[in-house]
Amino acid sequence: MTKSTSGAGGGLEGIVVGQTAVCTLDGRMSYRGYTIEDLAARAEYEEVAYLLLYGELPSAAGLQAFKSRLGAAAELPAPIIDTLRALPANTSMMDVMRTGSSMLAHFDADVADNGREANLRKTERLLARLPLVMAAKHRFDTGRTYADADPGRSLAANILRLVTDREPSREAEQAMNISLVLYAEHEFNASTFTARCVASTLADLHCAITAAIGALKGPLHGGANERVLEVLEEVGAPDNAESWIRDALARKVRIMGFGHRVYKDGDPRTVILTPVCRRLAEATGNQAMEQTADVIEKIIVADKKLPANVDWPSARLYYYLGLPVSLYTPLFVCARTAGWAAHAMEQYANNRLIRPSAEYTGPALRPFVPLAQRG
Amino acid sequence: MTKSTSGAGGGLEGIVVGQTAVCTLDGRMSYRGYTIEDLAARAEYEEVAYLLLYGELPSAAGLQAFKSRLGAAAELPAPIIDTLRALPANTSMMDVMRTGSSMLAHFDADVADNGREANLRKTERLLARLPLVMAAKHRFDTGRTYADADPGRSLAANILRLVTDREPSREAEQAMNISLVLYAEHEFNASTFTARCVASTLADLHCAITAAIGALKGPLHGGANERVLEVLEEVGAPDNAESWIRDALARKVRIMGFGHRVYKDGDPRTVILTPVCRRLAEATGNQAMEQTADVIEKIIVADKKLPANVDWPSARLYYYLGLPVSLYTPLFVCARTAGWAAHAMEQYANNRLIRPSAEYTGPALRPFVPLAQRG
Repeated sequence: MTKSTSGAGGGLEGIVVGQTAVCTLDGRMSYRGYTIEDLAARAEYEEVAYLLLYGELPSAAGLQAFKSRLGAAAELPAPIIDTLRALPANTSMMDVMRTGSSMLAHFDADVADNGREANLRKTERLLARLPLVMAAKHRFDTGRTYADADPGRSLAANILRLVTDREPSREAEQAMNISLVLYAEHEFNASTFTARCVASTLADLHCAITAAIGALKGPLHGGANERVLEVLEEVGAPDNAESWIRDALARKVRIMGFGHRVYKDGDPRTVILTPVCRRLAEATGNQAMEQTADVIEKIIVADKKLPANVDWPSARLYYYLGLPVSLYTPLFVCARTAGWAAHAMEQYANNRLIRPSAEYTGPALRPFVPLAQRG
Repeated sequence: MTKSTSGAGGGLEGIVVGQTAVCTLDGRMSYRGYTIEDLAARAEYEEVAYLLLYGELPSAAGLQAFKSRLGAAAELPAPIIDTLRALPANTSMMDVMRTGSSMLAHFDADVADNGREANLRKTERLLARLPLVMAAKHRFDTGRTYADADPGRSLAANILRLVTDREPSREAEQAMNISLVLYAEHEFNASTFTARCVASTLADLHCAITAAIGALKGPLHGGANERVLEVLEEVGAPDNAESWIRDALARKVRIMGFGHRVYKDGDPRTVILTPVCRRLAEATGNQAMEQTADVIEKIIVADKKLPANVDWPSARLYYYLGLPVSLYTPLFVCARTAGWAAHAMEQYANNRLIRPSAEYTGPALRPFVPLAQRG
């Protein structure tokens, strides 16, 4: 076999490994041709999910039908609720999402059908049910009972209601909606590429989504948004921020929420989300954390030339919404499921098995030594 | 960002994307320097798993200690048994393996520790427990009760005993052992590359293994061994074989078990496994299926120039061992877990996030149309 070396050890940085019509980060970041600025300012998450999955923005009637289907699907099979109840209280919520996604397959009527129509139905059910997996386990962990979503409310509102048991303000619902829109899709990121690798074997959609959830857990990927808040909580008051960050940088501690493989000059999602985060901080009396974040951001940008990425404001925004840190990456799952599914379906539609080669660096051929003769 | 196009749409065929010391397919196929011919003929699966994980063949005492640890770990937490019991009877066994792998994380004491020592312990537990997940669900599906493994027996013997409730012959145990050795590892195949993509985000080992199980399910990858037997059962008697296969080829039906991304001139595993399969067919009175397989193989090799790959004899071998077809790919999981874990640990030890780029083929930037104005 002829081999060519491309990106060996380089994590495939800058290597084009396939085509997509779902999203581009070149020039303006856009989902199927619509800029994320337009979508964040003017669209509901449900509209954006529809756009990613079906390729076009829905009509008013189409959106209504889509939301009705999501609402009707917003329930968990009893054996999944039983399993969630039996899990240890300290189980990582990302592990719970991974198990939940895998188990949803067992109760999905279309699981054995990998056609496009079946995959759209499966995706709609995952969009409706993964937030319920997250909310159910969190409710059990906090001494509450299982609750269903309200089919008449937006995904953003339902998430806030199920997690906090409070009626969200209009501003809170909008802020959550914008964060979901911005997390919904991001081209060939690590979890999406993982989903496409799985789909390329023609394994089914639940295999692809479950794999992607695992990839998103990593601190170099989605897991970063939880680390961001851990840092901000550790730093505490704005007065501590400069000495804390200068010390951390001197010790070469990697601060999550800064830098990005693709964006060297700044992440456009951060630009959109930062003012939303600021307003919410003011509305909720969290200006001190914003000041702490400002100090840290200015020093990292000046010192390391690393601009803040989307996780930097997202983590604060979720904190101001009263959400526990353990749910920040699961919230990313709820949003990104639309993007993952769009990519998996795109892979199925024009598939070639993703199977690269490796450079061997191990021992040369050596003779087998029988067990009795080994030292 | 500078991009270069490599293997776009080509599934990364022949593209070297990283280094490995675990296995090479160049020249002689070998695990850490030992040819698969030597390992298949002279080593137990447990020795091979140790070799893949620790880098060297174990001493007699080291192997004994390794097997003792596997034996001690060979039990399932009660909530996992309860969940398996609650799943529908027709659940895909590969979906069961995926859920089982994900749930084992919830009860693993080392789950939050991603260090090498913890990952070796986690891998040993997965090696001991994934076969129990498979056997438990199959036992429930066939009206039997949960049974533990016998810690004094080999993995090959335990699998055969738990699935069939019969004492395996020495020949049956050896045949199963060889199939596990040959399935244990295979360089940057699709599921292993998936595991490495997940590991590259620094997500933990259970994320990587669960993702790999999903990828292995695909019919273009591990799922092929189940399709092989479905074809052989459909063809039936040797007299039907030639007309069946000529008709299938004329209709351009893809026959699984032939051809391989890497091996254009033949799969060395097939050469090892075919005589084992032949002997077992004779011992179990299955010569007719061997004759059917022979006719099909000769015609595909002559007509399509596609040599048989390892799934071609593996599927027959499992059939002659009295194993149900639904377990063939799960058996592949039980074996390949050692390889996946070795690769994940190798990725952690010298990591760079795997995040490629894409060529955008979607719509050009377009103005947002408010919902009320859409057609």
